[in-house]
Amino acid sequence: MTDDLVLVDQHCHGVVAGDLDRERFAGLLTESSISTNSFDSMLGLAVRRWCAPQLGLPAHCSVDDYLQRRAEWGWRRVSSRLLGAAGVRSWLVDTGLSTPDTPLTEPADFADIAGGEAFEVLRLESVAERVAADEVNVADFLDFVENEIRDAIEAGVVGLKSVVAYRTGLELPAEPPTDVEVAAAASAWLRWGGGRLDDPILLAWLVHLGARLSAELHVPLQLHTGFGDDDVRLHRADPALLGDFLHATKSTGATIALLHTWPFHRHAGYLAHVFPHVLVDVGLAVPYVGDRAGAVLAELLELAPFGSVCFSSDGYGLPELHYLGATLWRRALGRLIDEWIADDVMTAADGERLAVNFAAGNCCRAYGLTVPA
Amino acid sequence: MTDDLVLVDQHCHGVVAGDLDRERFAGLLTESSISTNSFDSMLGLAVRRWCAPQLGLPAHCSVDDYLQRRAEWGWRRVSSRLLGAAGVRSWLVDTGLSTPDTPLTEPADFADIAGGEAFEVLRLESVAERVAADEVNVADFLDFVENEIRDAIEAGVVGLKSVVAYRTGLELPAEPPTDVEVAAAASAWLRWGGGRLDDPILLAWLVHLGARLSAELHVPLQLHTGFGDDDVRLHRADPALLGDFLHATKSTGATIALLHTWPFHRHAGYLAHVFPHVLVDVGLAVPYVGDRAGAVLAELLELAPFGSVCFSSDGYGLPELHYLGATLWRRALGRLIDEWIADDVMTAADGERLAVNFAAGNCCRAYGLTVPA
Amino acid sequence: MTDDLVLVDQHCHGVVAGDLDRERFAGLLTESSISTNSFDSMLGLAVRRWCAPQLGLPAHCSVDDYLQRRAEWGWRRVSSRLLGAAGVRSWLVDTGLSTPDTPLTEPADFADIAGGEAFEVLRLESVAERVAADEVNVADFLDFVENEIRDAIEAGVVGLKSVVAYRTGLELPAEPPTDVEVAAAASAWLRWGGGRLDDPILLAWLVHLGARLSAELHVPLQLHTGFGDDDVRLHRADPALLGDFLHATKSTGATIALLHTWPFHRHAGYLAHVFPHVLVDVGLAVPYVGDRAGAVLAELLELAPFGSVCFSSDGYGLPELHYLGATLWRRALGRLIDEWIADDVMTAADGERLAVNFAAGNCCRAYGLTVPA
Repeated sequence: MTDDLVLVDQHCHGVVAGDLDRERFAGLLTESSISTNSFDSMLGLAVRRWCAPQLGLPAHCSVDDYLQRRAEWGWRRVSSRLLGAAGVRSWLVDTGLSTPDTPLTEPADFADIAGGEAFEVLRLESVAERVAADEVNVADFLDFVENEIRDAIEAGVVGLKSVVAYRTGLELPAEPPTDVEVAAAASAWLRWGGGRLDDPILLAWLVHLGARLSAELHVPLQLHTGFGDDDVRLHRADPALLGDFLHATKSTGATIALLHTWPFHRHAGYLAHVFPHVLVDVGLAVPYVGDRAGAVLAELLELAPFGSVCFSSDGYGLPELHYLGATLWRRALGRLIDEWIADDVMTAADGERLAVNFAAGNCCRAYGLTVPA
Repeated sequence: MTDDLVLVDQHCHGVVAGDLDRERFAGLLTESSISTNSFDSMLGLAVRRWCAPQLGLPAHCSVDDYLQRRAEWGWRRVSSRLLGAAGVRSWLVDTGLSTPDTPLTEPADFADIAGGEAFEVLRLESVAERVAADEVNVADFLDFVENEIRDAIEAGVVGLKSVVAYRTGLELPAEPPTDVEVAAAASAWLRWGGGRLDDPILLAWLVHLGARLSAELHVPLQLHTGFGDDDVRLHRADPALLGDFLHATKSTGATIALLHTWPFHRHAGYLAHVFPHVLVDVGLAVPYVGDRAGAVLAELLELAPFGSVCFSSDGYGLPELHYLGATLWRRALGRLIDEWIADDVMTAADGERLAVNFAAGNCCRAYGLTVPA
Repeated sequence: MTDDLVLVDQHCHGVVAGDLDRERFAGLLTESSISTNSFDSMLGLAVRRWCAPQLGLPAHCSVDDYLQRRAEWGWRRVSSRLLGAAGVRSWLVDTGLSTPDTPLTEPADFADIAGGEAFEVLRLESVAERVAADEVNVADFLDFVENEIRDAIEAGVVGLKSVVAYRTGLELPAEPPTDVEVAAAASAWLRWGGGRLDDPILLAWLVHLGARLSAELHVPLQLHTGFGDDDVRLHRADPALLGDFLHATKSTGATIALLHTWPFHRHAGYLAHVFPHVLVDVGLAVPYVGDRAGAVLAELLELAPFGSVCFSSDGYGLPELHYLGATLWRRALGRLIDEWIADDVMTAADGERLAVNFAAGNCCRAYGLTVPA
């Protein structure tokens, strides 16, 4: 049922614009910052099982064969093949993770390679850190940040994103800090030259600003939740900690998208249940857990209303992650719906509707994109 | 194996005594306080699949058809049919949630409609708030609360209930606060005119009072744990936080029933494992998660001893919730036992014994009710 | 595929060196400290299903028949049969739990009965408490503890173990406390005569000492995480709380083994994913959850890299626990791999490699034991 589903990827990054040796490939196939045999995992199995045939190799081929073919084809052809095969019409690209060491494709280039359309999602912490780098005074800083966000939305950015989960964690206050508190915190931070934004007052201000602009300008605010690299403290990234913040924003018109959510996807499902302005996905988890995607998705759906579930891959660096995010998710969803229809839990029409909404409909409605026919 | 199981529902509420339009029906089919398309969920599917045939409609009929039939029959006939079909002999009714806006049936009326027997469970916070509303002094307040609880048990109340999870959360102290602390807290609260009881000292006093009376008078003390409406903060409703409290009460003779528990049902299973005075259920979760009830139940049973597991629906407002709580739970349990027998995990006799104890035996023994033959 | 797998048990205890009446047997078949019908559980079912045939009884025999046969054979013959049938080549025995009331076999005796080889794992808190009992001064105390650990490793101890989860919980600081802090804390503790070590400074010092010696001497440091008896507070035993500690030790050469992990096994899988110096197992859980072992293992593997997963039984007191730990784990792993091969998730060769690494290879490499051929 889901083989031909058109997907809209709520959250991904670009791919590395360059060829990768074995070590760098392995380093991008894990959230670990330390070199490791990342092929030896559910994700590694999935690359050999699903990506290899896309490169004209037998399923389950050796890692050596896989990397050799990748080198022969070059990054651009590999990316084009895998991204093209993902069946994704629109990609919402978080542009906040490109570094000089690992330069990623820009959205336009990415769209070109992938053969779909790309939209930009703006990372709030990056905006604040960029503005702070320009030696502004406090009053200008606060205005410039807000204005830069407004200008970006004006220019076509379709969503905002915060990684506060990585900084002070998700236990955000219900109310934004006062102007006096914000000014004092900004003053201290700017006096020290800015840098990585870790101040709890400024982060609370920034996320609340994001929620306010989300309500005013109808762009969802995405929050990283759940697992990530070794910089996140998992217990502070539990979306359940967002209770006060979500309660406070529930009737403002803001839309809050909880990304990833694993291993707290049931918590996220509950939040989407009681707060209708919440979207949820299990992106990042889906490529990583490989064949377990269906089990994770089923747990999410225990409480998550069907109108709140979106697809994302969180593909980053390797087009394999985008492709697997799409392919494993489509397959897991298809199997789940088939089982449910066979078990008379739902009708085929119910299943069809659910699938198209999860794949694209819910996301398109929230982000103001055209819903696929 | 479980089709004819007689159930005892450890925890439910009355149904709305009146007809409901679409919006009010949808509003009662979710824990969200904001209007939403609550049919579009596992629960919504289950209503169309399982309740529709009880009202003489085809399974999976449209929501419109369902609501039209409901309107034709009227709330009393619908309730009588669904509650009667639940196969529940005894209902333990928490009477603490009826409001002028949403008046619920009283236990006697409920029993009349449902065709079973109803017992009352007394909500401790409601007692305290009612007493506080009467302009008492501090010394009287403390005595009156205890006396009102004692009188209610004398008059037939079979259990006590606390919603401290909704107020200050479940991290209760091992020991009750001192008399001096309680008097000071009560004095402050009463001086402000009572109202919603949110004071951590008074709540700790009240729950410990409940545990003491549970031990003395042999009535279980029920605690809301896990998910609920948008007023609960999920991470403070994790029953694991009850460790100190349960350790302190484990040998007092008290019985503590952990209600709902999802998504922390594994945590609750562990607590029931190490604390034999603990009962657990997955009420509320079962109607809401629909076809996923079996998966949730299986996780609970990983550690929960078979003598600790009870059934409850947490049905509230809509008789659909009571009916689905019973039907989905019975079906999930039946499938699980069938699988386990087929897989030679247990004998048919083991399965039979487990089923009758979960359905009614464990609950009846704890609450002093007659165990079904 | 896994029937003939040779296992290495990363973490277990001895068995009770003596015959047990019904009450004592039941008391060892649970983590509860209060007498309970512990046969009425997934674990109890597994004893009757799997252990009974090892004692020449029909599967699912009655508890009475089982205990009678046990009495007839005597503890030594029963232990020899069950431990021998576990298919474990090497046992890593934590010797820190033997008490005068419940004397356990020493490793050498255990190995003799079991027919395998036994290695000792040293419990850090026991060392500290033993040294403190000898009326030493502060400076000597700190040196003596470190020296005793070094001597034990010199003498053949293959691993260290901490139960800090039971004391102050797992939220350990990234850095060890300063010398001044440690001296002050040790001074206070020793002045009060030592006893159970509950001081957060000394425990942080001890665990960091363990990590330092792990790096220097290449012995893994095991940490109890997740569920245990009623003395643990589950929410403080969540391995996710170890984030700072694991981040700080990730490049030091230390190896940290997270034992048990249930119900936080997904959290542990994430930690093993981002921190390559982390090993994980679901010991203790596996015998206790009975037929659910496969579900738990599958959840662990969602993120855990295949090079980080070890086997352990956490068998304690009853050889049934060691036997079931091995048998249920082998069966669960075998089924999981068979399913994955059938579903084309992996090849048979992948499955074979994964199985032998989980069963023994990963553990042997980490602890410096010979990898089975």
